[in-house]
Amino acid sequence: MSLLIRNATIVTMNPNRDVIKGDILIEGQYIKKIIRRGNKRLLPIHYTKIIDATDKIVLPGFIQTHTHLCQTLFRNIAEDVKLLDWLQKYIWPSEASHSRDSIYYSALLGCAELIKGGTTTILDMGTVHYTDSIFEAVRESGLRGFIGKVMMDKKSKNIPDELQDTTANSIAESIKLYEKWHNKEDGRIKYAFAPRFVLSCSEALLKGIRDFAIENDLIIHSHSSENRSELALVMKKTGCRNLEYFDKLGLTGKNLVLAHCIWLDKNEIEILKRTKTNVTHCPSSNLKLGSGIANIPEMLRQKINVGLGADGAPCNNNLSMFMEMRLSGLIQKPFYGPQAISSQQVLEMATINGAKALGVSDELGCIEEGKTADIIILDTNQAQTTPFVMNNIYSSIIYSMNSENVETVIIDGKIVMEDGELKMINEKEIIKKSKKYASKIWKNVW
Amino acid sequence: MSLLIRNATIVTMNPNRDVIKGDILIEGQYIKKIIRRGNKRLLPIHYTKIIDATDKIVLPGFIQTHTHLCQTLFRNIAEDVKLLDWLQKYIWPSEASHSRDSIYYSALLGCAELIKGGTTTILDMGTVHYTDSIFEAVRESGLRGFIGKVMMDKKSKNIPDELQDTTANSIAESIKLYEKWHNKEDGRIKYAFAPRFVLSCSEALLKGIRDFAIENDLIIHSHSSENRSELALVMKKTGCRNLEYFDKLGLTGKNLVLAHCIWLDKNEIEILKRTKTNVTHCPSSNLKLGSGIANIPEMLRQKINVGLGADGAPCNNNLSMFMEMRLSGLIQKPFYGPQAISSQQVLEMATINGAKALGVSDELGCIEEGKTADIIILDTNQAQTTPFVMNNIYSSIIYSMNSENVETVIIDGKIVMEDGELKMINEKEIIKKSKKYASKIWKNVW
Repeated sequence: MSLLIRNATIVTMNPNRDVIKGDILIEGQYIKKIIRRGNKRLLPIHYTKIIDATDKIVLPGFIQTHTHLCQTLFRNIAEDVKLLDWLQKYIWPSEASHSRDSIYYSALLGCAELIKGGTTTILDMGTVHYTDSIFEAVRESGLRGFIGKVMMDKKSKNIPDELQDTTANSIAESIKLYEKWHNKEDGRIKYAFAPRFVLSCSEALLKGIRDFAIENDLIIHSHSSENRSELALVMKKTGCRNLEYFDKLGLTGKNLVLAHCIWLDKNEIEILKRTKTNVTHCPSSNLKLGSGIANIPEMLRQKINVGLGADGAPCNNNLSMFMEMRLSGLIQKPFYGPQAISSQQVLEMATINGAKALGVSDELGCIEEGKTADIIILDTNQAQTTPFVMNNIYSSIIYSMNSENVETVIIDGKIVMEDGELKMINEKEIIKKSKKYASKIWKNVW
Repeated sequence: MSLLIRNATIVTMNPNRDVIKGDILIEGQYIKKIIRRGNKRLLPIHYTKIIDATDKIVLPGFIQTHTHLCQTLFRNIAEDVKLLDWLQKYIWPSEASHSRDSIYYSALLGCAELIKGGTTTILDMGTVHYTDSIFEAVRESGLRGFIGKVMMDKKSKNIPDELQDTTANSIAESIKLYEKWHNKEDGRIKYAFAPRFVLSCSEALLKGIRDFAIENDLIIHSHSSENRSELALVMKKTGCRNLEYFDKLGLTGKNLVLAHCIWLDKNEIEILKRTKTNVTHCPSSNLKLGSGIANIPEMLRQKINVGLGADGAPCNNNLSMFMEMRLSGLIQKPFYGPQAISSQQVLEMATINGAKALGVSDELGCIEEGKTADIIILDTNQAQTTPFVMNNIYSSIIYSMNSENVETVIIDGKIVMEDGELKMINEKEIIKKSKKYASKIWKNVW
């Protein structure tokens, strides 16, 4: 299969941040050639398909480094509540009532929304059971996924029986899933360890996965410093703050991706910087749960790598990267001024920084010859994006566009959405089945 | 013309805030009957059209009480700058370079986007010239508009010549426009005085329109307390704060609608409350320009009437009521907790509060028999709104929906959008012309 995208405006996100007018030739999984407009270099005569991208913007696909596909069916279920209530009264009981099929549709529904919004890669945290269902849904949808079974081995009366796990089982099952799924589908599917957060995990569990993850170069995906009550409990139980604890156990480093990181002190910022630990900023979720606003401008000044994520549907209530980009830019400005974060920095968080967090920036996150073809095509000819201003191309993308502008999505060289229509999965059928399984879950929560 | 909307879930926003399953019969401009499901009351046999609203949400159309249609062509033009720079370096030079035609297309483009996003009524502030073009565009589009020529008679070297106006001319032209346009199109088009803000207006101008506006029950639409530098200048020039100044001149009251109201002290909150002055909250714009975050929860506790507005495209960069609703809810939560504003309160701001601000809550802002038929139909069967949770209907609307969910828009009993297609105006043509006129304006600014 070879695919030619013609007459595009390509926002490459390459090291020079070049914006190029021209064509992209995709062969198999890879970006074979980028031909600048006016360049006479001959194109191959045969390609399977041509896409005319006149008046369109071509971007690397968005990379969300914190999602919970297993929670998509819990969308709109838990409103205007605080984090720990939200978790204990709604999310854990809902996760506990999942079946193999319900979690499969929850994940498929999430994949459908993500792809329609231009997201091509996710770092996803599952629940205790049925992680296979998430892998299967992601595989079928065409999305690229780093996925892990959630690890939580601390006993608590607030945790439903179905989610109680032992240290040994949690580690054993995670490694079994790694063996089954890691690097499947030509590397489109990968395993990532997912210890829930400090309060859910024993020291034995965290140490138990540390060496395995580092030796096999696997991502460790967790939550940290989301909420002041959480921080207080962490300090009470461990005697130190979240980042200090991760650091003490030897988990910090380039393989660790921590969602939220709102309540950090100066020393923790230093730990992030020194160890090259990655942060995922989730602005919608952080606002919705009243958690706070992470100081992202300071992290970026300190050259800490920050990606973006929608988190789960029940604390957002969407999975749109456009919303997270817009909010990332907007929410800092009342505190640090209109130049707090540039639009280019926001788009970096949504693309290349995500690839760095996942250790795949040599393959993904920008459009360059030889890179893997995860590419999205955005239509500028809609009322809400007119006029689209090339002089302010980054702002025009992050502040005026939304999921409606996403026309075509290519992952691993394959077209997974075209003209708004999903090609690998049946959206209508997924919506229908999702409604059925959601109502079963509601019965267990209300 | 009679129109039957069948099998709907009707979020009425009536005084009881009833959510009704049933049918709505529209005859001419009015909501003739609301028939609850299971009620055997016979329907008339003949209607021009039936819309099946199974799995759909029917709402009163959104009312935006602060927009600038003349600025839609300046979308994406002025990024990451402070309010006064934004105004003086970009917006005023752009307004100054408008022609009769460019402002007409700017307004039409805004109308297209607004209707597609479910907005049915706006309170709009024009520029110094060509206000007729805005009236014409709104009239053609089918939108309901309260529109006014901007009034600014204070000389300043920062203001382009084209925008310099005299007190006498500003008042005379405003009254002429009132006489020409007020209550046209069966009352769908109304005049509203639009003094820009305290710093732009002489005392003579403000006093000059006060009695005329009150005698003729006209809205006075202005900006206030948006920014700390503005407040400092107002205090320097008038010796008092914005609301104190408006109050001293006798402009406060139910006819006054003030956008922003971020930097208010306790006494100004008291003035708003005592005089029943209306506030328009514009969260995207306030964040984008780094202005601050208005204390809306406190205003609502004080029973001050607060509506919502997208402001102009160059400080948003969209005109979507869904975005303003979502942000209104989200941005208060990190400061005042997840219950800071309920989702129902947010939807009230977007509908019935807007109608109150414009003095038309006996006709608009809720779905009741006898009210004017400004109604929108929202599809729930999309990935980003699945599952749609009836138990949390207000949250499901404001946090999971967006403009993509708007399927049909009815204004004054007429279908102005159906299945996403505008019926009164040609969207493609508007986009094409808008691009042409925008590029002419850019030449004058860059």
